[in-house]
Amino acid sequence: MNRTLLFLVATLFCGHLMAQTPIELNWTLEYETDSDPGKLKQAEAHVPGAVQLDIAKAEGYSHYYYAENWKDYLWMEDHEFEYVGRFIKPSMQNGDLLVFRSLGIDYEFEITFNGTKLLQQEGMFTPVRLDLTSLLKVQNEIRIKIYPIPKKHPLPADRSQASASVKPAVSYGWDWHPRLVPSGIWDDTWIELIPETHMKEVRLNYSLSEDMDEAFVKAEALGNNLSGCKMAWILSDAKGNMVDMGFMRAYNDRGVLYTKISNPELWWPHDHGDPYLYTYSIELTDPSGKFLQTMEGKIGFRKVKLIMNEGAWSEPAGFPKTRSVAPIQLEINGRKIFCKGSNWVNPEIFPGIINDDRYEELLDRATEANFNMLRVWGGGIVNKESFYKMCDEKGILVWQEFPLACNNYEDSPEYLEILKQEAESIISRVREHPSLAMWSGGNELFNSWSGMTDQSLAIRMLNSLCLELDPNTPFISTSPLMGMGHGHYVFRDQESGEEVYSTMSGAHNTAYTEFGIPSPSSVEILEAIIPEKEMWPPREGTSWESHHAYNAWVGETWLMPDMIEEYFGRTASLEELVERGQLLQCEGYKAIYEEARRQKPYCSMALNWCFNEPWPTAANNSIINWPDFPKPAFYAVQRACRPVLASARNFKLVWKKEEQFSTQIWMLNDLYQKIEQGVLTATLVAGKKKVDLGTWEFGALEANTNMEGPVLKAQLPRWKADRFTLQLEVEGHPEYNSDYTFLLSGE
Amino acid sequence: MNRTLLFLVATLFCGHLMAQTPIELNWTLEYETDSDPGKLKQAEAHVPGAVQLDIAKAEGYSHYYYAENWKDYLWMEDHEFEYVGRFIKPSMQNGDLLVFRSLGIDYEFEITFNGTKLLQQEGMFTPVRLDLTSLLKVQNEIRIKIYPIPKKHPLPADRSQASASVKPAVSYGWDWHPRLVPSGIWDDTWIELIPETHMKEVRLNYSLSEDMDEAFVKAEALGNNLSGCKMAWILSDAKGNMVDMGFMRAYNDRGVLYTKISNPELWWPHDHGDPYLYTYSIELTDPSGKFLQTMEGKIGFRKVKLIMNEGAWSEPAGFPKTRSVAPIQLEINGRKIFCKGSNWVNPEIFPGIINDDRYEELLDRATEANFNMLRVWGGGIVNKESFYKMCDEKGILVWQEFPLACNNYEDSPEYLEILKQEAESIISRVREHPSLAMWSGGNELFNSWSGMTDQSLAIRMLNSLCLELDPNTPFISTSPLMGMGHGHYVFRDQESGEEVYSTMSGAHNTAYTEFGIPSPSSVEILEAIIPEKEMWPPREGTSWESHHAYNAWVGETWLMPDMIEEYFGRTASLEELVERGQLLQCEGYKAIYEEARRQKPYCSMALNWCFNEPWPTAANNSIINWPDFPKPAFYAVQRACRPVLASARNFKLVWKKEEQFSTQIWMLNDLYQKIEQGVLTATLVAGKKKVDLGTWEFGALEANTNMEGPVLKAQLPRWKADRFTLQLEVEGHPEYNSDYTFLLSGE
Repeated sequence: MNRTLLFLVATLFCGHLMAQTPIELNWTLEYETDSDPGKLKQAEAHVPGAVQLDIAKAEGYSHYYYAENWKDYLWMEDHEFEYVGRFIKPSMQNGDLLVFRSLGIDYEFEITFNGTKLLQQEGMFTPVRLDLTSLLKVQNEIRIKIYPIPKKHPLPADRSQASASVKPAVSYGWDWHPRLVPSGIWDDTWIELIPETHMKEVRLNYSLSEDMDEAFVKAEALGNNLSGCKMAWILSDAKGNMVDMGFMRAYNDRGVLYTKISNPELWWPHDHGDPYLYTYSIELTDPSGKFLQTMEGKIGFRKVKLIMNEGAWSEPAGFPKTRSVAPIQLEINGRKIFCKGSNWVNPEIFPGIINDDRYEELLDRATEANFNMLRVWGGGIVNKESFYKMCDEKGILVWQEFPLACNNYEDSPEYLEILKQEAESIISRVREHPSLAMWSGGNELFNSWSGMTDQSLAIRMLNSLCLELDPNTPFISTSPLMGMGHGHYVFRDQESGEEVYSTMSGAHNTAYTEFGIPSPSSVEILEAIIPEKEMWPPREGTSWESHHAYNAWVGETWLMPDMIEEYFGRTASLEELVERGQLLQCEGYKAIYEEARRQKPYCSMALNWCFNEPWPTAANNSIINWPDFPKPAFYAVQRACRPVLASARNFKLVWKKEEQFSTQIWMLNDLYQKIEQGVLTATLVAGKKKVDLGTWEFGALEANTNMEGPVLKAQLPRWKADRFTLQLEVEGHPEYNSDYTFLLSGE
Repeated sequence: MNRTLLFLVATLFCGHLMAQTPIELNWTLEYETDSDPGKLKQAEAHVPGAVQLDIAKAEGYSHYYYAENWKDYLWMEDHEFEYVGRFIKPSMQNGDLLVFRSLGIDYEFEITFNGTKLLQQEGMFTPVRLDLTSLLKVQNEIRIKIYPIPKKHPLPADRSQASASVKPAVSYGWDWHPRLVPSGIWDDTWIELIPETHMKEVRLNYSLSEDMDEAFVKAEALGNNLSGCKMAWILSDAKGNMVDMGFMRAYNDRGVLYTKISNPELWWPHDHGDPYLYTYSIELTDPSGKFLQTMEGKIGFRKVKLIMNEGAWSEPAGFPKTRSVAPIQLEINGRKIFCKGSNWVNPEIFPGIINDDRYEELLDRATEANFNMLRVWGGGIVNKESFYKMCDEKGILVWQEFPLACNNYEDSPEYLEILKQEAESIISRVREHPSLAMWSGGNELFNSWSGMTDQSLAIRMLNSLCLELDPNTPFISTSPLMGMGHGHYVFRDQESGEEVYSTMSGAHNTAYTEFGIPSPSSVEILEAIIPEKEMWPPREGTSWESHHAYNAWVGETWLMPDMIEEYFGRTASLEELVERGQLLQCEGYKAIYEEARRQKPYCSMALNWCFNEPWPTAANNSIINWPDFPKPAFYAVQRACRPVLASARNFKLVWKKEEQFSTQIWMLNDLYQKIEQGVLTATLVAGKKKVDLGTWEFGALEANTNMEGPVLKAQLPRWKADRFTLQLEVEGHPEYNSDYTFLLSGE
C-alpha cells in the first residue's frame, strides 16, 4: 500500500493556499488480468502514475523498454481499472469544505464517493474539483473507475484510433514510440480542507501600451464568502521590492483590482534579455482583520505577434496570383526573433511519472543548446504546470499545440464537445505563462496523411476559443502552414539520392519547423535495450525493429545501415555503426540549422525533429536519448545555434582526391548588437596536413543580420585519410569558429 | 414633399405581419451646402435613397454619370444631414405598440423622436427597431441625423479611408468606380402599429441526415405575449400541398417547434436540378381562438461543403513539405459542382435606389449566362433581402463576402466592435437562404496591397462568428486562398507581352475566382457619358479617364488603345475601337472560362471579374454595362459556360499566312449525365474559304467529366482576310458547336 501524503498545498495555476494539516490518502488499484479473468486483484497504486505501471509492478513484469517487453502491456488497453482511495475524516469546523482535486485523470473515468457517483468525465486535461463534504463519513472511500482507452474503431490498431478523442495520439504507435497506451491518474491529486472563506484561483490579465511603457493589469481572485474581507494585492519585482500594492474590490465570489505598472521590466527569451518575472501575492484577511490565506504567483510582461516574414509580401509574382504566405516571423516586444529550437515530445511514455526534475534537466539542455523555442508537438501531451513555469523562468518560448496530430479529427458533435472542454481547460491554464509564444491546432493536419482542412470544424473551433480566451497570443491552424516546411528527415533522400546540403540550399521556406537526421543511439543505450543475442548484426523483426531501427517511417529508417555502408564502406562493428551514423547526424543537423539561419530574414525559425524521446530508441532523429543523454549531435546543434558564428554553405559530403573543393563562407549574427569587422580564415585539415582555402575580411555585422562571404575553392590533395575537416577560424574570436567534416573517396 | 406610404407589411427576413391600415410618413432632408454655409435648406427626401441624390435634385445638379459631374458631389462627404419624418398618431388600442423600423441607414447616425434621443449607431447593415409608443403625441417628428462619411484619415483620399469602418470601400474610389460616397437611409424604412400579442421574427434551422432523406427542422417564432396562444405551423411543398403541420410550444416571447420532414425535396443550383423551396406559415390565434397574425416564408434544404480539390492532396511533393492547398471544391448535396459565374458588384453607386426590378433583370442575366454562382464581392454592399430571395428562387449560388476589401483592417477594439455588430446582423439575415454557398472574410486581404494575414483579429473574429451562427456553411478567410488565383486582368500582359492563352494554360490553380479582359463600352453608352468635344480621339485627363478608360489600374487600363492598335493596326474611328476591343474581350473570356473548365477536376471554379457595374464606364472588365446592357462578351461567356460544348485550347491570337496553325480540341461536360460518343469536326474559315483541320471521334463522356482530344494542325493559306475563325462542329449536336476568332498577319 503506497501512502501518498497529500497536503493542502495547491500548486494549481498560479497560487497556493496556506499549508495546513495533511490528509492522509491511501491508494489501491483494483484490476483483472486477461490471463485470470474474473479474479479481482489489488496493486499498490502510485498517484500520479499509470495503471499500466502499477499492474506491471504487481505482476512482476520486466521493464517495458527492454527488448519487446512493451507487448506484454497490450492486453490492458481494453480493460477497466479502478483506483480506490481511503481516508479518515479530519476534524472540521462549521463551514469547512472537504474537496477532492485532481489536475488530470487519463482518459475517461467516473468518480464515486462513499457509494455515490459524483462525476463521469472524458478528457485528461480538465481538472477535477469535487466537494465531498455532504457525503463524509468517518471512514471514506473514493473510487475512480478508469475506462478502457478510447478507440474510434477496433482496427487498424494505429494512431487513427485516437481521432475521435482528445487523447494524445502518439501512444497508439509512432515511428519512434511503441504501441503502449497509458491511462490512470497522471497529475497531482489530493484532498484539501478549505475554510468557508477562501480564495481558490487567481486570474491575471494585462495589456501593454503601444510603446510598452505601461502595463494595465486586471487581477481577479475567485473564491467564496469574500464580501467584507480585505484582499491586499502586492506586486514585487525580481529582487523582492514592492512595486505596486492596493486592495481588491471584494464581492462574494471574487475580488477584483485594476492597476497600472509604469515602465515594467519586460520578459524576454533568454538569448535576448532577462526572462523577467514579477511576483504577486494576494492576502486575504477576514472582516475582523484575521489573516486567512495568501495566494502567490508570477507574472511576466511581454508582447507577442506573428508578423509577415521579410520579403514574403513580394511573393507570389505574376498572374493568376494566389495569396501571400502565412506569417511566421515571431516578434517579441517589438523585436523580430529568429527562433532556434526543437520539437518537444513526451519525455516519458507514461506522463504520470514525469516529475519536476525531468522537466528541469531537459529544459536546462534546451538553453544549453542555445535554443530559444520549443514546439510542444500535438501528438503528445500538454505538459504539466511545472514545465511552463520553468520555461517562464528559463526564458524558453513555447509553441503549444493542441492534442491533434496526423489524423482527420472529424466534425462530429460528440468529439467537438470534448475538444471544446479540453481546449478551454488547456487555454485557461497555459495562457498565464509569458513563455507562451503561440497556439497551434496540431501537427500536420493540412497534409494528405491527416486530411483535415481550413474547413474542419475542430480547427475553426480552436481558433475561435483561442480568440475568445487568449486574444493576444497568435494562433496558427497547424504546422506547416503555407510557406513553412516540414522535413526532410534523412541525411540523403532514399529515392533521389539528394543530400541534405542541396535539399536545404534549394529550399525557400519561411520556417523550418520540423527536420530530422537520424542516428543510432549510443552503444551503452543499445546494450540496455537489445538482448545480446540480437545485437549484431542488427536485423529486422527483432528488438531493433521494436526500437525503431527498421520500418519505422519509410525505407530503412531510422538505423539506415545500408546508407551508412554506402558512404563509409562495410560496417565491421556496432561501435563503428554508431560512430558513423552519429557523424552523419552531426553534419546533417549543422547543415540544416545553419542554412536556415543563412536564409534569414525570409526564414524565421529552425526547429529540428526532435529534441528528446519517451523511451530509449535504437535509432531516432532526437538529439537527446532517453532520459537525458545528449547525443554527439546535441553538441553539433549547440554550436550551430550559437548567437554569432562563422558558417559554411557546403555542397556535399563526399569529395574525391584532387577534386576542386568549394564552399561559401558566411558570418551569422542573431544578436541585437553590432558585431565588429574581422578576418575569417578557412582551412582544410586532414590530421596534421592542411590546405589553405583563403581568408575573408568581413565588415561589421548589423544587429540581427548575416553577411554573405565569398565562395572559396582549392584542389584537394591526394591525402591518405578518408575524412577531412573544413575549419573556419575568426581572428581573435575563437568562440565564432566552426568546423565541418567530409569524406574523402579514393578516386 | 415625398409621401411614402408605409404599410404594416414587414418583409424583413422571412415573414410578414398581416396588412393593416397604412401610416403616412412624410420625409424631408435638411442640409447646408458648402457654397452657402449657415443656411439650412430643405429637400424632398426619397426613402430609401441617398442624401446625395436628394440634394442633387434639389440643387439642380446634372446626372452624376455624365462627364465629370461626379466631382460636384465631393463636398458632401464631410457634412451632416438630417432626415425629418412626420406623422399623425394613428388610433391605437390598449397594449398596441408603434414601432419605427429601418432595414438600413448608411453609415453613422442618431435618431431622435419628439426631441428625445433614442439611438446612436454606427453601421449600415444592422437594422433599427425603436419602440416609439411612450413618446407619442398627436403630431410626431422623427429625426435621423446622418454623420459625415467615415474616414480613418483625411489623406490619402482613397479606399484606405474606409479601413476602420464597415462602410463598403468601393465608393471611396476604385478602378471602375468614381469617388462618390453615398450615405443616408438605404433600405426599407417604416412605422408599424403592432398589437400587444404578436410575432416579430421567425428563425429556422435544419440539419439533413447523412443520406439527406430526413430534414430535422427547428422553427422558432419570436414575439410578445404569446403564452396561451395557438401557434400553428404549416409547411407546404412547391405545389401548395401541405407536407407538415403542428403546433408550436408557446412561451411568452417565442414559440418553438421541432419537426422532421421525410424525403425532402432538395434545393439545387439551377443547372443541377430544381431550386426547390418549401413555404412555411405560422398562424397565431389568441387563447379565445381569434386569428391574429400569419408569418410566412420559404425554406430550402441543401447540404453545402468545401472539400479538397481532386488531385490536390498529392501536392506538394518532396521535402521540405508545406501544407496542401485550401479546399475550394464546392459540394452541394454530395455532388461536386463546377462553379461558373462572376463577381457581383453594386449595381448602383447609391444602393438606396437598387430595387427589385434591377436585381431581377441582372439575376436573370446570370442564369441566362449559364452561371450557377455569384461572388458578392467584399468591396461592395451586402445586398438587400430581395437579392437573396431571388437567388434562392433562381438557383444561383451566392458566395457572400463581408465588407472588407484591399485594406488592412486593423485590430483596434473600436473597429472590431462595429465589425462584430455588423457581421452578426449580416450572418443572422443571410444564413436563412439556401442559395448561400459560402462566407468569405473579404477581398484579397492576404495580399501585399491589403497586408492582412491569418493573424488579423478581424478575420479570426469573422471565422468565429460564422462558426457560432452558421456552422454548416463554409467560411474562407479571403479570396484568393492558397492555390486559388486572381487575375490576369488584361488580354496581354503589358510587361511580358504574354497572352491570356498561354498564361492560362500555364496556370495551375484550384479556382479562378477573379480574371478579367477589358473592353470599351458600346458607342451608345460612350455617347451618353462623354461630351462630344472629348469623344475623339480618347485622351487622358478627360471624361474618358473619369470613366476608367485611362490610369484606372496599371498602364493604359481599361481602354488599351495602344494594344488594340498593335494587334489591329491604326484605329480610325470610335466604332472601330469599340468593335476591336470587344472582340478581344470575347476571345479572352472564352479562353479563360474554357481553360478553367479543361483543368477540372483539379480546378473547380471560374468566376470572372466582373459581372455588372455601378455606373456607365467607358471601358471595364464587366460583361454587362450599367444598368443592364450585355456586352458582346456576355454572349461569348454564355457560350463558354454551356453545360456541354466542344472546346479548343488555342495558343495565340495572331497567325501568319502559311504558318502551321494548331489547336487542341476537347469535349467538356459539366452535367451529371453521360454524353454519348460523337464526331467533332474542326474547320478554319475566312469568309467563304475553308481549311479542314480534321475530325475527332470522341467516346462517351462520363457525368461531370471532360475528354481531351488531339492536337490538330494545318497550314494556313495566303488568305486575303485579316481575320479567320476556328469552327468546331459536333455532328447532330449544333448546341455543342463553338468558334474562335484569330487575326491573320501579312507575313
